[in-house]
Amino acid sequence: MATGLAASLQNQLAHQPSHLPCSLVVEYAKGEMIYDQHRRSTSLYLVVEGSVKVSRVDDEGREAIIDIYQPDEFFGESAFLNLDQCCEQAMAHENTKLMTWTTSALEEIALDSPCVAMALSQILVRRIIDLTERLESFSVDSIARRLARSLIRFSDRLGTPEENGWVRMPPLTQDLLGQYVGTHREIVSVYMNQFRRQGHLQYARRVILLHRASLQAWLEQNALSSHGRTRHRAAKPMRVLPTPGGRDIRAVASQC
Amino acid sequence: MATGLAASLQNQLAHQPSHLPCSLVVEYAKGEMIYDQHRRSTSLYLVVEGSVKVSRVDDEGREAIIDIYQPDEFFGESAFLNLDQCCEQAMAHENTKLMTWTTSALEEIALDSPCVAMALSQILVRRIIDLTERLESFSVDSIARRLARSLIRFSDRLGTPEENGWVRMPPLTQDLLGQYVGTHREIVSVYMNQFRRQGHLQYARRVILLHRASLQAWLEQNALSSHGRTRHRAAKPMRVLPTPGGRDIRAVASQC
Repeated sequence: MATGLAASLQNQLAHQPSHLPCSLVVEYAKGEMIYDQHRRSTSLYLVVEGSVKVSRVDDEGREAIIDIYQPDEFFGESAFLNLDQCCEQAMAHENTKLMTWTTSALEEIALDSPCVAMALSQILVRRIIDLTERLESFSVDSIARRLARSLIRFSDRLGTPEENGWVRMPPLTQDLLGQYVGTHREIVSVYMNQFRRQGHLQYARRVILLHRASLQAWLEQNALSSHGRTRHRAAKPMRVLPTPGGRDIRAVASQC
Repeated sequence: MATGLAASLQNQLAHQPSHLPCSLVVEYAKGEMIYDQHRRSTSLYLVVEGSVKVSRVDDEGREAIIDIYQPDEFFGESAFLNLDQCCEQAMAHENTKLMTWTTSALEEIALDSPCVAMALSQILVRRIIDLTERLESFSVDSIARRLARSLIRFSDRLGTPEENGWVRMPPLTQDLLGQYVGTHREIVSVYMNQFRRQGHLQYARRVILLHRASLQAWLEQNALSSHGRTRHRAAKPMRVLPTPGGRDIRAVASQC
């Protein structure tokens, strides 16, 4: 859905009259900061290649990840409000190419072409729905369930389907997953191990293979009473689903 | 800020040519459902009088409050995406009057008037920033800090300043605050009592008086290491700040 909406805006922007400001393409090396509290952004960005981590950092340096944006996804919309203070930062999560439009240029384009403004609104509404879904998960789910939902969400957005229902995902570190679901790396490690023992995922240093349907079934079966307290159901029996082509995860990882 | 943005969109909508679809004003009694999973919304709403609780409810009936919307605030933007499934619901939090525009009517207005679309985009961006701030708080704050931030946020949006730095807030139940910060009513009760003993708030059945500066100072002083673990600082000494006019909270409540 997000990609479809982003494609709609890209398409609108690509068909603007030539007198309107064009987008620049800018490259960032992995780990390079695109904007932060000290270097505020005045642009909307579209990821062309690579990926970008957008997060919020508080006064004590604690980081909460808002999202990882992929090719064909927009980020940086907070620049539209021209706020004096904004704790948001964006960092190249890998070597990345971005297209950028200053918000003033986009406003000029949108005033000329209402379809651009409507396409932008639809992207923003989609983002609001995604954020409220995550807020709901933070509000009612245990950490294990938050992690499971996040892994499924990342597999839908960033993954590549393989055989037997497995999805190959990029290497998301346990630190990053902890900042995404609001917990410590060590706790992520405990649940990642649990999911691996239960056969929902396999992982090595440079790859995660997720069995989406199996983890989704775990989410549905592992009902919680509320606010993270389990109903003390019996643990599901361990099961190991065959990895793509029956290969061992280390063999899969070695191809990366 | 939100009110300013909403005023901008209202102003744009009020100056549309008369051939465009007008808004309806609809009344809802306290507790009446405006839309839910079964009666999906196709409209954007503006609160004229009263207030509206927008929340998400999961399959097990657990509710996470997205926000309480006040006069001059818009809600219902998810209707723009015409989703097959949406777990969002909106309920009149008190007797309420709403203006409504169907999303198809608004799209027609926006295509005729790009300023409407831009004003709408700015409201959506403001909402995204608010949601990411709450997501950050869920991610890095303890429940006590989430509650303190939420009380300050509600006092800024819904409160009326009184004497000596106190802000009079509408009666937000501990159940509602629990659904807003993602915990049980009983835990909210513990921290509300703590904040009262520390002199940051006073409350009775029908009113909350919050000393904004004092609770903000508590937030700043009561630093956490991360993810809700305190640094075991000494508890702040109890202090009682004078209520407006030196009155007892029960006397204030009896005026409501």
